[in-house]
Amino acid sequence: MALTREECEQRDRDDPLAALREQFLLPDGVIYLDGNSLGPLPRATGPAIEQLIAEQWGTDLIRAWNRHDWVNLPTRLGDLLAPLIGAGPGEVLVADSTSVNLYKVLTVALRSTRAQHPERNVVVSERGNFPSDLYIADSVASACGATLRLTGLGEDPLAAVDRQTAVLLLTQVDYRTGRLHDMSVVTAAAHASGVVVVWDLAHTAGVVPIHLVESDADFAIGCGYKFLNGGPGAPAFLWANPHRPQSVLQPIPGWFGHAVPFEFAVDYRPAAGVAAYQSGTPAVLSMVALEHGIGTVLAAERFGGLETLRAKSIALTELFIELVAPLGASHGVHVASPLDSRQRGSQVSLTHPEDAHAVVQALIDRGVIGDFRTPDIARFGFAPLYTRYVDVHDAATHLADVLHSEAWRAPDYAVRSAVT
Amino acid sequence: MALTREECEQRDRDDPLAALREQFLLPDGVIYLDGNSLGPLPRATGPAIEQLIAEQWGTDLIRAWNRHDWVNLPTRLGDLLAPLIGAGPGEVLVADSTSVNLYKVLTVALRSTRAQHPERNVVVSERGNFPSDLYIADSVASACGATLRLTGLGEDPLAAVDRQTAVLLLTQVDYRTGRLHDMSVVTAAAHASGVVVVWDLAHTAGVVPIHLVESDADFAIGCGYKFLNGGPGAPAFLWANPHRPQSVLQPIPGWFGHAVPFEFAVDYRPAAGVAAYQSGTPAVLSMVALEHGIGTVLAAERFGGLETLRAKSIALTELFIELVAPLGASHGVHVASPLDSRQRGSQVSLTHPEDAHAVVQALIDRGVIGDFRTPDIARFGFAPLYTRYVDVHDAATHLADVLHSEAWRAPDYAVRSAVT
Repeated sequence: MALTREECEQRDRDDPLAALREQFLLPDGVIYLDGNSLGPLPRATGPAIEQLIAEQWGTDLIRAWNRHDWVNLPTRLGDLLAPLIGAGPGEVLVADSTSVNLYKVLTVALRSTRAQHPERNVVVSERGNFPSDLYIADSVASACGATLRLTGLGEDPLAAVDRQTAVLLLTQVDYRTGRLHDMSVVTAAAHASGVVVVWDLAHTAGVVPIHLVESDADFAIGCGYKFLNGGPGAPAFLWANPHRPQSVLQPIPGWFGHAVPFEFAVDYRPAAGVAAYQSGTPAVLSMVALEHGIGTVLAAERFGGLETLRAKSIALTELFIELVAPLGASHGVHVASPLDSRQRGSQVSLTHPEDAHAVVQALIDRGVIGDFRTPDIARFGFAPLYTRYVDVHDAATHLADVLHSEAWRAPDYAVRSAVT
Repeated sequence: MALTREECEQRDRDDPLAALREQFLLPDGVIYLDGNSLGPLPRATGPAIEQLIAEQWGTDLIRAWNRHDWVNLPTRLGDLLAPLIGAGPGEVLVADSTSVNLYKVLTVALRSTRAQHPERNVVVSERGNFPSDLYIADSVASACGATLRLTGLGEDPLAAVDRQTAVLLLTQVDYRTGRLHDMSVVTAAAHASGVVVVWDLAHTAGVVPIHLVESDADFAIGCGYKFLNGGPGAPAFLWANPHRPQSVLQPIPGWFGHAVPFEFAVDYRPAAGVAAYQSGTPAVLSMVALEHGIGTVLAAERFGGLETLRAKSIALTELFIELVAPLGASHGVHVASPLDSRQRGSQVSLTHPEDAHAVVQALIDRGVIGDFRTPDIARFGFAPLYTRYVDVHDAATHLADVLHSEAWRAPDYAVRSAVT
């Protein structure tokens, strides 16, 4: 039996993580279940950016690069983030976008593999991977004389790995279904076939415990604006296994990745380690916003950190799945996410037989913000940092009501905008 | 005869552009001559970012992507910037860093040229070009089976262009000396040799009239945080000649450059025109700061725009050159910038025989902020939007005093920090 609303309120009172919600400025009347698309505003971010603009940029001007250590923001934020993804200090870089970072690591992975094993000319990924990853994988593969091989929905990508495979590119949590790959298992299996693994952690960083070093992964990249709450279009991150230094340079060797940028040397000499993956000057405003976003996750450390967050995340998604279960028989709404919580990220995706988009719009009008993903998915993210049990209960109640009342059939909800 | 301080004050009173200085929050007691490294804080930026954070991100959350048209920021800011660089609407994109943008256009330029003319396997640039440009040119050239050929300081890069040359990559204003290339003349000469031209406008955009379309250039990229006042690490821009559509895709085809990103299609279909050069999600905070930076230059339109700004810039640099002329004989300080103002950007670079770095540090301690560029250059940028004639006079007086008093010999000034 799913919990009653009163039992949910009790759960919230008993929740050791409850205080973490206070880190965010959440608008009244909103149940925000889209932190997997854009994390909400941390309370600390506004004042920090105000101070950055007025006192650092405005007052110190060019001197701020030294005085406030802007120069080292990419590696400093990387170090801040490292424990959240099971990486060590000096191993993580925060820079550019997820797409650009993927381009860099995938190029390095493929060029170095092909140099040693010219017969390996295939990049394997999943058809359901985030499109940007597929577009970039295709571009990198072409440029390296390789091809991209995609596995179908529900297929095991490891089954497509063979002796021709150079690189396996996977997003750990599927952006539509929420399916979660076991990083250690998949990495070990790929390695057994001599294949390099690149992980996209867009939907895992900040919400699922990740053990990059322990899993002996090769490369990882991820997003700053989802569960890391870094703000719209926040810079992304990049990790390269320090125990496997590469023989090839990253493809976009800009001055910030030089060993001594302010020598302005004509010849490129890469900085040590992951810092060499830098290209141009970091976008300082967006970097500092991300710093405070990462801080909201680090604040969970004193309550057990990501393990505790993960336990709450599972409890929230399980509760939602239980609460919406009756809507299958009554309205054809089914759970598209894995029912086994070990295989599910921090989201629940539902399919609707007619118009999932309209259902999401009707819910948004009632203050329950999820999102639509083509063709038929209503997606709900449950961020354990700020989502309460009672929010889950209320969201499920609103959903049932939108379906029972057929409110979603209102003509306005059929109109699609650019981002939903 | 150089102007007296009183005459400078009179010039400032008569200056039709004087009011534009009010657009900036400049700290008291500072003469800022480093806007060619980091433009100062526009008065409008702080409130705009505060509003963006609290009301757009904080309140509208994911819905802000539509409600505040964040989705189109890259092309919208491109259109805003277009008139400042002689480009048309739909031709300019604001995204990523200058280094990443250079990587994209150079890869397209070189791949498409080599596909048609395999015998053209050389990229020509100048040894004095900004190092990031050289590192990236070298990387792109290697990846395309070409090599980078560099001309020496003071040499005409056109002399190095031959039938093997595929691409000529030039920064219009040399970051150290301030030497200004004539875009129309150089482009026409390169085209006559069948060579594609890529312009880096880092030190020209916002301060020198640029006519990309009229000059029939091929590609251009540039920086948002110098004379465009976009804030530290502001996103950069990119222009591709719309009359020469490319047969090859840009190398980092992320989802934001897809014709319909929110279709989440497995196959990449590029957006029309320059929008296809987008990769990942734009860094919204940094983009909006740049929007207000560009606004400070657009505000000059009612006073004659860039032509008037350029005239003032020339008057400021000529005045500074006249004022520091006596320091050649007395202290061995010489002007490294071209004396012909038609060949000079908006900066004056001086060489010092012993320690230009210490001279710059001593000046900074007196509130005159310029910067040092290795090995012997003290560099002073004169941004006509906010630099007064009296500032030029006072800066020259402080410089003379630092030299006469030998204040620069203080041991503290010998210490070098990461950014100077």
